[in-house]
Amino acid sequence: MDKKRVYNFGNGSAEGRAGMRELLGGKGANLSEMNLIGVPVPPGFTITTEVCAEYNELGKERVVSILKDEVEKSISKIELLMKSKFGDVENPLLISVRSGARISMPGMMDTILNLGLNDEVVAGLTRKTGNERFVWDSYRRFIQMYGDVVLKMKPVKKDDIDPFEAIIEKVKADKGIKLDNELETDDLKTLVKKFKIAVKEGTGRDFPTNCYDQLWGALCAVFDSWMNERAILYRKMEGIPDEWGTAVTVMAMVYGNMGNTSATGVCFSRDAATGEDLFNGEYLINAQGEDVVSGTRTPRQITKTGSLRWAKLAGVREESRMKNYPSLEEAMPEIYHQLYELQSKLEEHYKDMQDMEFTVQEGKLWFLQTRNGKRTGAAMVKIAMDLLHQGKIDEKTALMRCEPNKLDELLHPVFDKKALLRAKVLTRGLPASPGAGTGQIVFFADDATQWHTAGKQVIMVRIETSPEDLAGMSAAEGILTARGGMTSHAAVVARGMGKCCVSGVGALNIDYKKRTVEIDDEVFHEGDFLSLDGSTGQVYEGKIETKAAEVSGDLAELMKLTDKYTRMDVYTNADTPHDAQVARSFGAKGIGLCRTEHMFFEGEKIKAMREMILAETLEGRYKALSKILPYQQIDFKGIFREMNGLPVTIRLLDPPLHEFVPHDLKGQEDMAETMHVSLKYIQQRVESLCEHNPMLGHRGCRLGNTYPEITQMQTRAILGAALELKNEGIVVLPEIMVPLTGILYEFQEQKTVIDNEAKKLFDEVGSRIEYKVGTMIEIPRAALTADKIASAAEFFSFGTNDLTQMTFGYSRDDIASFLPVYLEKKILKVDPFRVLDQNGVGQLIRMATEKGRKVRPNLKCGICGEHGGEPSSVKFCDQVGLDYVSCSPFRVPIARLAAAQAAIENV
Amino acid sequence: MDKKRVYNFGNGSAEGRAGMRELLGGKGANLSEMNLIGVPVPPGFTITTEVCAEYNELGKERVVSILKDEVEKSISKIELLMKSKFGDVENPLLISVRSGARISMPGMMDTILNLGLNDEVVAGLTRKTGNERFVWDSYRRFIQMYGDVVLKMKPVKKDDIDPFEAIIEKVKADKGIKLDNELETDDLKTLVKKFKIAVKEGTGRDFPTNCYDQLWGALCAVFDSWMNERAILYRKMEGIPDEWGTAVTVMAMVYGNMGNTSATGVCFSRDAATGEDLFNGEYLINAQGEDVVSGTRTPRQITKTGSLRWAKLAGVREESRMKNYPSLEEAMPEIYHQLYELQSKLEEHYKDMQDMEFTVQEGKLWFLQTRNGKRTGAAMVKIAMDLLHQGKIDEKTALMRCEPNKLDELLHPVFDKKALLRAKVLTRGLPASPGAGTGQIVFFADDATQWHTAGKQVIMVRIETSPEDLAGMSAAEGILTARGGMTSHAAVVARGMGKCCVSGVGALNIDYKKRTVEIDDEVFHEGDFLSLDGSTGQVYEGKIETKAAEVSGDLAELMKLTDKYTRMDVYTNADTPHDAQVARSFGAKGIGLCRTEHMFFEGEKIKAMREMILAETLEGRYKALSKILPYQQIDFKGIFREMNGLPVTIRLLDPPLHEFVPHDLKGQEDMAETMHVSLKYIQQRVESLCEHNPMLGHRGCRLGNTYPEITQMQTRAILGAALELKNEGIVVLPEIMVPLTGILYEFQEQKTVIDNEAKKLFDEVGSRIEYKVGTMIEIPRAALTADKIASAAEFFSFGTNDLTQMTFGYSRDDIASFLPVYLEKKILKVDPFRVLDQNGVGQLIRMATEKGRKVRPNLKCGICGEHGGEPSSVKFCDQVGLDYVSCSPFRVPIARLAAAQAAIENV
Repeated sequence: MDKKRVYNFGNGSAEGRAGMRELLGGKGANLSEMNLIGVPVPPGFTITTEVCAEYNELGKERVVSILKDEVEKSISKIELLMKSKFGDVENPLLISVRSGARISMPGMMDTILNLGLNDEVVAGLTRKTGNERFVWDSYRRFIQMYGDVVLKMKPVKKDDIDPFEAIIEKVKADKGIKLDNELETDDLKTLVKKFKIAVKEGTGRDFPTNCYDQLWGALCAVFDSWMNERAILYRKMEGIPDEWGTAVTVMAMVYGNMGNTSATGVCFSRDAATGEDLFNGEYLINAQGEDVVSGTRTPRQITKTGSLRWAKLAGVREESRMKNYPSLEEAMPEIYHQLYELQSKLEEHYKDMQDMEFTVQEGKLWFLQTRNGKRTGAAMVKIAMDLLHQGKIDEKTALMRCEPNKLDELLHPVFDKKALLRAKVLTRGLPASPGAGTGQIVFFADDATQWHTAGKQVIMVRIETSPEDLAGMSAAEGILTARGGMTSHAAVVARGMGKCCVSGVGALNIDYKKRTVEIDDEVFHEGDFLSLDGSTGQVYEGKIETKAAEVSGDLAELMKLTDKYTRMDVYTNADTPHDAQVARSFGAKGIGLCRTEHMFFEGEKIKAMREMILAETLEGRYKALSKILPYQQIDFKGIFREMNGLPVTIRLLDPPLHEFVPHDLKGQEDMAETMHVSLKYIQQRVESLCEHNPMLGHRGCRLGNTYPEITQMQTRAILGAALELKNEGIVVLPEIMVPLTGILYEFQEQKTVIDNEAKKLFDEVGSRIEYKVGTMIEIPRAALTADKIASAAEFFSFGTNDLTQMTFGYSRDDIASFLPVYLEKKILKVDPFRVLDQNGVGQLIRMATEKGRKVRPNLKCGICGEHGGEPSSVKFCDQVGLDYVSCSPFRVPIARLAAAQAAIENV
Repeated sequence: MDKKRVYNFGNGSAEGRAGMRELLGGKGANLSEMNLIGVPVPPGFTITTEVCAEYNELGKERVVSILKDEVEKSISKIELLMKSKFGDVENPLLISVRSGARISMPGMMDTILNLGLNDEVVAGLTRKTGNERFVWDSYRRFIQMYGDVVLKMKPVKKDDIDPFEAIIEKVKADKGIKLDNELETDDLKTLVKKFKIAVKEGTGRDFPTNCYDQLWGALCAVFDSWMNERAILYRKMEGIPDEWGTAVTVMAMVYGNMGNTSATGVCFSRDAATGEDLFNGEYLINAQGEDVVSGTRTPRQITKTGSLRWAKLAGVREESRMKNYPSLEEAMPEIYHQLYELQSKLEEHYKDMQDMEFTVQEGKLWFLQTRNGKRTGAAMVKIAMDLLHQGKIDEKTALMRCEPNKLDELLHPVFDKKALLRAKVLTRGLPASPGAGTGQIVFFADDATQWHTAGKQVIMVRIETSPEDLAGMSAAEGILTARGGMTSHAAVVARGMGKCCVSGVGALNIDYKKRTVEIDDEVFHEGDFLSLDGSTGQVYEGKIETKAAEVSGDLAELMKLTDKYTRMDVYTNADTPHDAQVARSFGAKGIGLCRTEHMFFEGEKIKAMREMILAETLEGRYKALSKILPYQQIDFKGIFREMNGLPVTIRLLDPPLHEFVPHDLKGQEDMAETMHVSLKYIQQRVESLCEHNPMLGHRGCRLGNTYPEITQMQTRAILGAALELKNEGIVVLPEIMVPLTGILYEFQEQKTVIDNEAKKLFDEVGSRIEYKVGTMIEIPRAALTADKIASAAEFFSFGTNDLTQMTFGYSRDDIASFLPVYLEKKILKVDPFRVLDQNGVGQLIRMATEKGRKVRPNLKCGICGEHGGEPSSVKFCDQVGLDYVSCSPFRVPIARLAAAQAAIENV
């Protein structure tokens, strides 16, 4: 009962500090910290995240009664500093109520501004400020915000119209104006009147006039917003635990909308898109913060450099720019100077790129927030390397600053340069989030999701985006918006997601009903192709070929740094020379999984393979396999050549035989003809190969043990290829991998077949080569009896896809019928096929590694499931002490970074 | 190099003893022991089982050179005692060479008799014995046996004719005689001559004349026979390791075929079929041992009582009996007296029923072998209880003497008494192995196997059986033979297998070619039905209904004894009141697994279930489920009533929904009509429910978690039934079991649903009842995270069927494509679905039990897979500390005995 629930700050002192973000939220902790380092911040207090948990547990009434005294005392402190009084008619204090979780969840939760207003206060405040329009504008904003958020009048369905917006539109239409700031004071008074009627109609009660009623309503609404649907969705996507809760910060209001000496803005200490060390941001004169970020007005640039660049991109002439869009540097040089100094101070203090909100009230600058800025993958790498070069952070910090998954953006395809030359530029907007995207136009988030699920690439086209569009944006290849700047919702979210985004494209004329977008008289329909370059802001007609990115510059330097700190190697899963080459260029140190299935499928091989399956005698199977042998030898040579000097782990044939036979009538007829047997025979054979549960059937080394001749052929192809290349001076390090081992003897039998065939081949050729024979560990029993298996196997490779299937008893092909429900009910926190289940599957990996190494201390252990490229799984592998992780070529840099971070963390 | 390889015995002293069976084999150890306790045994020596391993490792030449000196010395010792000389022309010693493994493998390995004969020795021996016919008879037998076994002239394919047999048949046909003992001395000489020619033709070499060459050939042949095909098959069936090897015993020959004062026989200290404390056996005058067991001559009874009983059964008149089939008691009263005394002495010494071989040579009695006798399940129980009552063994020994699996015979169906009254008796034979069997006639082992695999019940009909028929006998419901006594191959093997057998039915006239059997002019064809009563020897026409056996008499007493020593309870898997009642009568202490699937299938329920599956809304599903509820409540009441006072573990719905919908067009049309929807809709729904790997799909608690309303309904049915019975004074102890749990939260969600529904029901009814909620542990992840799951679950039940599937990654439905190869190659020693895999699956069980009890010390743990009725698995469960095993009703007594033995062993 005695724990501290409320932390005060203001006027250069604070009860909290930056290190207390778990308790105060990021926003609250930084507001305290800013006070402590001399950055001007309106006074206020933060209610802790622990109270959010209490709120969810004990309920509204209990928590309000617990908080009452403390909150009232803190309000008094603000009153003292601001020399005004909450609810006072003559000299009223207005406050804001803001959410703030441990890590930033932009746009997810609610904020209420201008709290403390009622009809009497409005009258007093008007007398005090002499700015009637500002007061009424604040009042109408407050009622709308409060009505939407606290009184829950905001429609749940996004297509329904907000009742307050409807009133505004009606008033503007009646008056014949378009923009909110064209509304005059009387119009604002009309709005307030109509708003109050709407509240009465919508809730059955009058709008609350008591300022403490307002405050408690707002506090509870913020706590409530932690559990709103879109916040839950966001947390699920970002892997944030529900238990964390949000803090609530209450601050004195300062106003950017008190006339032309007031302004509000958002700024970054470096460029969030490119990472350039360039102070930048956007602001609006005589506006509140929401005007800047919502995209309803096109904001102005803070620096002159930025303004000039923006004007060039947007095609705005210098006269118009100077008149309508002057930079803050030009419009308020004194304020700009303060702002510049303070942002430097903040970056210097936090040693990272800062994302700051500020307000200028009648010539005085206030900071409302600072936080480490979200950034694109490219910016993340550049900023980390720049800070390192500038001596502000050390190498380990630089590595830890980069989020492995975000490297994905840098490795995403860019437009093929040649294709781009032929492409038609339709228009240009702001380069809001870099990268290239091409796809079919959709206008609604639901469509984006559905089309994406259906395998289509889509570009989401919106006037502006809102948090409701999140899922759709996540499914799209790129986002194109008509309104909004570099800090608009669309831009911020797209950068966070690593999606390309072009925003604020004035030339767009979107008709949601007709599902069309007009760009300079040209009409595009839903389903038409568009291409976006988020790095230049250009919008292209049609589909444009893309190509893979390269590892160079800062990224290359970062990658080099990973090698300095990493303990584990990163291998790749590659089945072809091309994959091997790409992966090697990304820094793969070997192939951890070369699947051989495709070597039985392509061209002539499939015929011979079918012959083998059909053969009823050993001789028949030998004959058929001898046809496949030379093809496979060529395949292996191609891969070995690319991996000269590096180990190549080759998995013997794994899938059930029925995957190789045709299941359609036409295919069966062809097969019958080719093989000179009856259709009926083929059909019977196909039927006999079908299984109830093929995942648990006749596959993996069960094939090699029932048809050892397949293993013989593959051994001969692998080692034969290696011996031929040896003559060319190429160093081949083959590691032959037996799949699906569950029993020691199963492996031993295969190893004997391999070793015998190798010996035979070496004798024939008169030359030999070193090779290893190891096994996949993907059957729970193999992990449980790993000590036995390690007595014969020279390496273990954890096949976490199958191991996850069998440990959970989930068929990956059938999981769709219950996985969504499991995620929704939080029975599962994440899809275990995406993120390694450390408790269950991980336990088997740890056990097998320990048991295996007890018997064979130098046992080489790695992982080759899809988890090998997922950062949290890679870190687990490091903890367990694996020698390598293997992942798809494009995830190699991600895995390298994760591995280096793991080594630093796991010291 | 200094280890002792050869152990001598003879004339009342011996280097070995009974406790050395691992080294000397059962036969060798007992021959030594018999010497030590004063039973007359021909002198000899035993070569150890270790030499068999050396033989397999080092090969023939090395082992012969290692053994040479020792063997020659031991032969000298025999020569000394027998006052004759091996290979000597004037006073020759003849010897036998016999195999003998650690445990008896009747008929599996080879024996050579009369070794040491050649043309000169024959001449000398004739002079010495004055019995030319005996000598030549021995000689021709020796050449045939040596030719077959050592020179490998016995045809591999059983339908091919033995070249020696062909010669004999020819000679007999030429002479117009039928029986071997009608051959005169000259005929025997002709045979020897022709045999030698056959050997020369067949092997390219002369028959060996040097007696040591003969000896080494025979010794090696015995070692070779350890690895012959049928010995390997037998060991696989009996679970005997290949590493054990066989010992070889070399003994001086004694002859039962030296005229009318000579005889040979087999006897038992108690009745091997019924267990009665009645000395019994069979003998033949002037014969060798093989004549008795091969069934070529119908043997005579040893005791007068036995002889009278046999005559009655076989319909032999007293005059004929006295003349042609006198008992040994009547024919050689002095010898009988000695035999009786010695068999008593042996049983007294070994404290178990003895199976003995003896030979009388010219009035002197020799024992050739004694061992614990094979017996039927009924005899096993009776003998154990009798020995206990007679004070010869204690309770624990009585329990340990009974082999749990053999109780199966006592629990096998017997003929329905009413059906038997209507049945027509065709003929009568010897009651060679008790129990009832009904099935279709087959004549060949291969057919028996194939028909059995095809799901048919077969009766195997043979003139006589041989070791080649083993697999067929194992597949048959019963065995019927025309020749052979109670100790014939057919009789001994059938008793071992617990199959019913009627042997020595003279009325049978079998035509293998036509595949018919004539019984008193009535012809039966392959495929016709016959029924056998192995307890009475009666053969019935047609198929006769069978019914379950009861637990009474000695068995009931044995079962009572198990309760005194057991630590684990035995529960049953029962889904119906009838099963519950049967299991309770067999002593089940509760239901460990009550599957509820059938409660959704039968009659009206399936319609409602299909409605539920089809319903697209929660309301629709509720409506459909409310129709099923009353039916399930009735089902549960029936089971609870039977189990009054005992716990009943009910598993919630487990199988995937697609099992409930029709997959055939007709069924789908019916369903469409009943449900008033289109056929297409039904087909789409059925299609959508199909899964790639249903075993790993949407089933178990994944159903309950996606459709909690099913769990609600089942909870209501279970507890509703319990509450209603409570009013009748019936004590219901329901334990609700959640299937297929893999994740704590998965279980928690279900437990919440169950508890909420229970509370709701209790409130409605105004009464309550205690219940438990626990889970199956059948997913590897559940075992790995058992500590977490035990925080919420009140009991664990190991579902070892599914746990085996997922731990091995085997689909039980698809295993047939590789399991036979795996067993053959010994990758798997046994089918893991039959015998629990202690290393892998067992490790998970042990881990889960330990982890679970660490969190919840009183956690109730049991096993409910099919392994719960398999003795070795039951013993493992005891070691792990499980509270109970649960098995099918008919295996309850087996599990109870195994559990008691486990408790005694695991002290």
